[in-house]
Amino acid sequence: MKHLNLQDINNLNHLYKINLVNSIAGYKSVNLIATKSVSEKTNVAIFSSVIHLGSSPPLLGFMLRPATVPRNTYENIIETGYYTINHIHDQILEDAHHTSAKYNREISEFEVTKLETEYKDNFYVPFVKDCPIQLAMQFVEEYTIKANNTKLIVGEIKGVYIKDGLLQDDGFVDLSKGKVATINGLDGYAIPNLKKRLDYQRPKIF
Amino acid sequence: MKHLNLQDINNLNHLYKINLVNSIAGYKSVNLIATKSVSEKTNVAIFSSVIHLGSSPPLLGFMLRPATVPRNTYENIIETGYYTINHIHDQILEDAHHTSAKYNREISEFEVTKLETEYKDNFYVPFVKDCPIQLAMQFVEEYTIKANNTKLIVGEIKGVYIKDGLLQDDGFVDLSKGKVATINGLDGYAIPNLKKRLDYQRPKIF
Repeated sequence: MKHLNLQDINNLNHLYKINLVNSIAGYKSVNLIATKSVSEKTNVAIFSSVIHLGSSPPLLGFMLRPATVPRNTYENIIETGYYTINHIHDQILEDAHHTSAKYNREISEFEVTKLETEYKDNFYVPFVKDCPIQLAMQFVEEYTIKANNTKLIVGEIKGVYIKDGLLQDDGFVDLSKGKVATINGLDGYAIPNLKKRLDYQRPKIF
Repeated sequence: MKHLNLQDINNLNHLYKINLVNSIAGYKSVNLIATKSVSEKTNVAIFSSVIHLGSSPPLLGFMLRPATVPRNTYENIIETGYYTINHIHDQILEDAHHTSAKYNREISEFEVTKLETEYKDNFYVPFVKDCPIQLAMQFVEEYTIKANNTKLIVGEIKGVYIKDGLLQDDGFVDLSKGKVATINGLDGYAIPNLKKRLDYQRPKIF
């Protein structure tokens, strides 16, 4: 096996280091987070840090990295209290990835890509049309991680839209039936196929 | 599309709700976190919440959910300051999943599964043998999320071991070459194949 210690990692050049450290975290969710300013300017950006925080209440988190992530998303969330999380799927990989380009706040990524807004149920922020899972989110709280000055944004799921055919009888949502993407590192995309579901585990009796 | 609002979600029965909310977070990393108590008792448990927090310094986070996760992991990390993160791969899915069973602290999951400890470079905590990526971690800090009393554990990567053939010339680690798993919801496993890597994006010129 290839071994690198902390000093080796710290001494790597920037691009090699971010490729490496982002990859070794494992597969990540990859989503489009859409927001809208109080002056009604939309914004949509790709994030690979959405995580499950809890089910009762239904809470998700995501990380904002000050140095690399467009700040528009954060500003709009704080201004309005709302955002949407939309799952990236195989048909929009290139356009979704393009939202990582650094546009200023005057330009909406909905204008420069084929991604389309979809408004429904009077939610202030648009969803991304045709995404197999769309989540209406309300900001709850934020935490600044002292170790590197990133922020964890905590939000509550106010509504979920699931493409027909994905939701199973026990509440399991089969992401592979929606051709939902996962990301390896900063730029490696995969569209997984479900291999198997395993049973709830109890201790073995000896 | 199927639509559920917050009230619908809150009214679901427990199992349906945790299947649903865990699934709609998207694909997650799935890892074995190994620890060892000061009295040298090992522990290993499955986690699907490891996330990348930053590359300089190299930091990863993971969530501890008080109600569902074995506390042994947390106690050992606080006692000793160290843990290892080991990527689950296709050959150990069943044994890895079995570590979700609630054993008491007197029993090591290394004793009740075919998972094997591997000690190297004088790190106090064992790695899980044959995992394609193994990370030596040092505890940095923790945050309690007020909204649901879960904890975010922040750790620094002190060392990384990568199976031969996965590391590319630019630092990208191809997880699919190690048959690394991802998890959908609580129990749906997939072994993704890399579809494509996309280029670094700059704004389009109009």
